[in-house]
Amino acid sequence: MTTQTTTGTQDKLRDLYTEWSQLMADYPTMNMRLFRAVFDEWHQPTTEPENVTYREDVVGGVPGIWCLPEGADESQVLLYTHGGGFAVGSSFSHRKLAGHVAKALGAVSFVLDYRRAPEHPHPAQVEDGVAVFEALVDSGIDPKNITTIGDSAGGNLAIAIALSLKEQGKPLPGQVIAFSPWLNMENDGKTLETNLDTDALITPQLLEGMIAGVLGDKIDPTTPLANPLYGDYEGFPRIYINAGSVECLRDNAEQLHERATAAGVDSTLNIAEGQQHVFTFNAGNSDVADEEIARLADWYRQGR
Amino acid sequence: MTTQTTTGTQDKLRDLYTEWSQLMADYPTMNMRLFRAVFDEWHQPTTEPENVTYREDVVGGVPGIWCLPEGADESQVLLYTHGGGFAVGSSFSHRKLAGHVAKALGAVSFVLDYRRAPEHPHPAQVEDGVAVFEALVDSGIDPKNITTIGDSAGGNLAIAIALSLKEQGKPLPGQVIAFSPWLNMENDGKTLETNLDTDALITPQLLEGMIAGVLGDKIDPTTPLANPLYGDYEGFPRIYINAGSVECLRDNAEQLHERATAAGVDSTLNIAEGQQHVFTFNAGNSDVADEEIARLADWYRQGR
Repeated sequence: MTTQTTTGTQDKLRDLYTEWSQLMADYPTMNMRLFRAVFDEWHQPTTEPENVTYREDVVGGVPGIWCLPEGADESQVLLYTHGGGFAVGSSFSHRKLAGHVAKALGAVSFVLDYRRAPEHPHPAQVEDGVAVFEALVDSGIDPKNITTIGDSAGGNLAIAIALSLKEQGKPLPGQVIAFSPWLNMENDGKTLETNLDTDALITPQLLEGMIAGVLGDKIDPTTPLANPLYGDYEGFPRIYINAGSVECLRDNAEQLHERATAAGVDSTLNIAEGQQHVFTFNAGNSDVADEEIARLADWYRQGR
Repeated sequence: MTTQTTTGTQDKLRDLYTEWSQLMADYPTMNMRLFRAVFDEWHQPTTEPENVTYREDVVGGVPGIWCLPEGADESQVLLYTHGGGFAVGSSFSHRKLAGHVAKALGAVSFVLDYRRAPEHPHPAQVEDGVAVFEALVDSGIDPKNITTIGDSAGGNLAIAIALSLKEQGKPLPGQVIAFSPWLNMENDGKTLETNLDTDALITPQLLEGMIAGVLGDKIDPTTPLANPLYGDYEGFPRIYINAGSVECLRDNAEQLHERATAAGVDSTLNIAEGQQHVFTFNAGNSDVADEEIARLADWYRQGR
């Protein structure tokens, strides 16, 4: 585990979260349609990654966008599940971030538009991720060359997709990457309280609404594919996990790291000092985000 | 003047406008911050143009995004001013549309993030466009190889930039392109009434708010650089103008075409049957939009 001491001189992500929090306060009756418009602004703190092209596609029945860095190895695929509480966010909000990561790792990335809650409750999101993974394998991609990767609720999905494949005895991805994963569906994490004053976006109330949307009142919040803190990590792929030190979901990352390590998994955790939820969204605009992506690229190459 | 009879089998743009109209009805107190989030969804009806890369830049002091189709002639530049009532819209909402057009024309495009109203009233937007034009010329681009292009309020700006350069006796762009230009700042166009039932987005009330934002109560709505229907078109570059037949701003396009033609300008007008405001936003998803962009590319090449 590494702890950074660098703090970016600017934090466009934190500024955006502050604006969103103000909007949610000003419009307490904001409906899901409006929430989706607002959260599609998540791309704003990220610069356009240069020398990357995009292509819409449908893989395994699931629509999404390919991020194709010039010169990338197309046999190495990042299966990117976007964040947004399983309900908001999209391939558009995450295109630039996925492009930066793909470029650094020398891979291509497919950003899924999985079915979102509440229209489609759990496990629709996991099923869509598994369908894309299997379609990639069927198309000839070596499973070891597939990385499931995501942020926030998408970090949960990146793990749940691998857990689901493991349950089914199918080939697993070569590695898993989770940026600020949101895992605790019981909504009782310690840092939900201790970091409430420093997290610019997340509140227990916001998460409670998202949990109700994806789980409803019938699905147990300790179901491992919905709450990977209850997952069985024996034989799980190596995993890279990060979080910001001041975010409410910090302990989700730490608990996942502990649980995976206890099961013998090669797990790397980085808690970035002073950073917000999914701080890699500052890619291109903050040294902290850029250094994190460079560190991730080193980790990716060293394990291969 | 050509009138199309084709109507697309799907119209994602119309569907999006219908959703926006519902949101504006549900949230009549929507503030400018929220309006900007909603209108940044304008990219949604447009597919990702393949084989185009993007680069953020500052040109003439104005930030924006370069859309760089692979193999495009970088000496031919589309100076793209986005629409959104001078107040909303961005390089992000228009990136894909500008990418499609640049690709078809074999050029590169710089989509400006000009200063927006109401924080920055007229003529800040025109000044920013002129600054970009002059910086491009200073960098060695032949003015004849620059096209000012935009949609809605950005179509107004594409014309006003050329009118401003003409007033100052400076070199003019080689051509001007205006998609569904919004020009009439007196807000008294005939089709505002006759097409009110068929336009899925525009209403006189919506325009009135935008006019108040950009002109305030001090700027005359017949000022030619704010309302190009009052412009002097003698010696103006050739121009391509379009509009949808069912949109409220249809007569803005028709009146501009009449005025330019009367001044001896080589003006082409296409009113597309059954189409909404800035119907080229359906690029990649509708034959009507794709055929229009192909027609525009023919026009561009024939005049060169």
